[in-house]
Amino acid sequence: MNLKDYLSAKKKIIDIELDKYMPKETEYPQIIHEAIRYSVFSGGKRLRPILVLASGGIFLQDERKLLPAACAIELIHNYSLVHDDLPAMDDDEYRRGRLTSHKKFGEDIAILAGDALLTVAFEILSEEVKDSKLALKIINLISKAIGTFGMIGGQVVDISWDKDKTELPELEFVCTHKTGALIAVSLRVGAVLSGASKAEEDALYEYGKLIGIAFQITDDILDEEQDGKKGFNYPAFLGVEESRRRANDLINKALAKLYIFDKRADILRQIAQFIAGRKE
Amino acid sequence: MNLKDYLSAKKKIIDIELDKYMPKETEYPQIIHEAIRYSVFSGGKRLRPILVLASGGIFLQDERKLLPAACAIELIHNYSLVHDDLPAMDDDEYRRGRLTSHKKFGEDIAILAGDALLTVAFEILSEEVKDSKLALKIINLISKAIGTFGMIGGQVVDISWDKDKTELPELEFVCTHKTGALIAVSLRVGAVLSGASKAEEDALYEYGKLIGIAFQITDDILDEEQDGKKGFNYPAFLGVEESRRRANDLINKALAKLYIFDKRADILRQIAQFIAGRKE
Repeated sequence: MNLKDYLSAKKKIIDIELDKYMPKETEYPQIIHEAIRYSVFSGGKRLRPILVLASGGIFLQDERKLLPAACAIELIHNYSLVHDDLPAMDDDEYRRGRLTSHKKFGEDIAILAGDALLTVAFEILSEEVKDSKLALKIINLISKAIGTFGMIGGQVVDISWDKDKTELPELEFVCTHKTGALIAVSLRVGAVLSGASKAEEDALYEYGKLIGIAFQITDDILDEEQDGKKGFNYPAFLGVEESRRRANDLINKALAKLYIFDKRADILRQIAQFIAGRKE
Repeated sequence: MNLKDYLSAKKKIIDIELDKYMPKETEYPQIIHEAIRYSVFSGGKRLRPILVLASGGIFLQDERKLLPAACAIELIHNYSLVHDDLPAMDDDEYRRGRLTSHKKFGEDIAILAGDALLTVAFEILSEEVKDSKLALKIINLISKAIGTFGMIGGQVVDISWDKDKTELPELEFVCTHKTGALIAVSLRVGAVLSGASKAEEDALYEYGKLIGIAFQITDDILDEEQDGKKGFNYPAFLGVEESRRRANDLINKALAKLYIFDKRADILRQIAQFIAGRKE
């Protein structure tokens, strides 16, 4: 299948599943369910859940085993965006061309909507992943990936940035933790749920770490090129050309991690190449 | 054992366990670990984890099976306090006589500290509860209790309060959800982890719901009497005398739920009476 068709087919499936898991807007107290749905259904690319499906898809035909965890990870991603956008953090008014949650619903509801998205992710993981041991293992992997030694840690360093002092190591920490940790664990969760061997799981996890950094670098390049956004990012430290070289280098390393897999990993190969060349 | 000694002994044990679970303040990024510890070790009474121990203590001698879940619930309670205190919510400057997290560390770190406390609770539950099926069951019970149909839902209604329109049913909803849900699930988790029968689990859960409401009512009465705090609370709707009568009535109903248990439930009986008569 070509990548574009794959991404669009999987996005549709994920959106349908997410809709099943999200409480209706008519359920009391309505405002919080409205706020949750507003953020979750706002045109995201669903990259992380697609990575869960593509990783598990190497070993499994039937992706129903993967969908609850894929959706939970997407909800966690959305929680992180809602909280990152808050006035006390990045103070963003718009995301994907629409008002951010706090601009639309108020800061109090936005904080609670983020809290609720994180909470419901664990509810789904504990309820919908049918094998108890696997469910527990991925809850553990995910909670570590998004805690203070993972995603939250990355965000802490990002907001504590002192532009007179911060050097490349801090930027790399932010990149691997704030963005990279959730992307990497998505690959790992897909592998764990599909009965991959330890070596296969490790290879996919390493692939995930590498594309996660590459994804952030290309994001930074796009910000710089399209919006002229300057700041605590790769182009600011390395220039656009060197940043692009780094991203390509990471993608090549990621592709090398897949050498143990046959053509069933082709979607992951295409996704890596897509990240290197992305224009949006 | 008399209640005072029991509470103080259990508080000590819980504090020691919490200290083991919390990353050291020297771990990078330090500021978030400092903020987490600041909130967790701020002189809380540890009511919720003690309820887990007292509930499970009816069936089990060895409380080590209960401690991870007890600690996780205490961390969740602390996350809810940190987020409730934020400027966008209750905008409190002090809690337990010390600056609130956002006053001490800034709003951004306080939001992330709350997020981290919630996240680490699930990490502990998934790692430290040794029986996979039980671990998964209590993760599910807890995530439901603190989601939009539980604690978060209660907070949403609390902050959305329109004083010209809100009636007693909304107040009761806030009380049973914002405060009651986590207290009630504490009892239930203790029962589930200790092999209680369904009937025993239900009795303890009902006891928990009843003392949860009574706890909030007596809290409101103390606020009114000590600080003259007026607002969306029981004394404002019913007057102090009628509020106190209600709390006593709930405590009697809670005690009645314990009739199936022998003297091993005496600590829970004493806790209920303590709640009815509390002066702090």
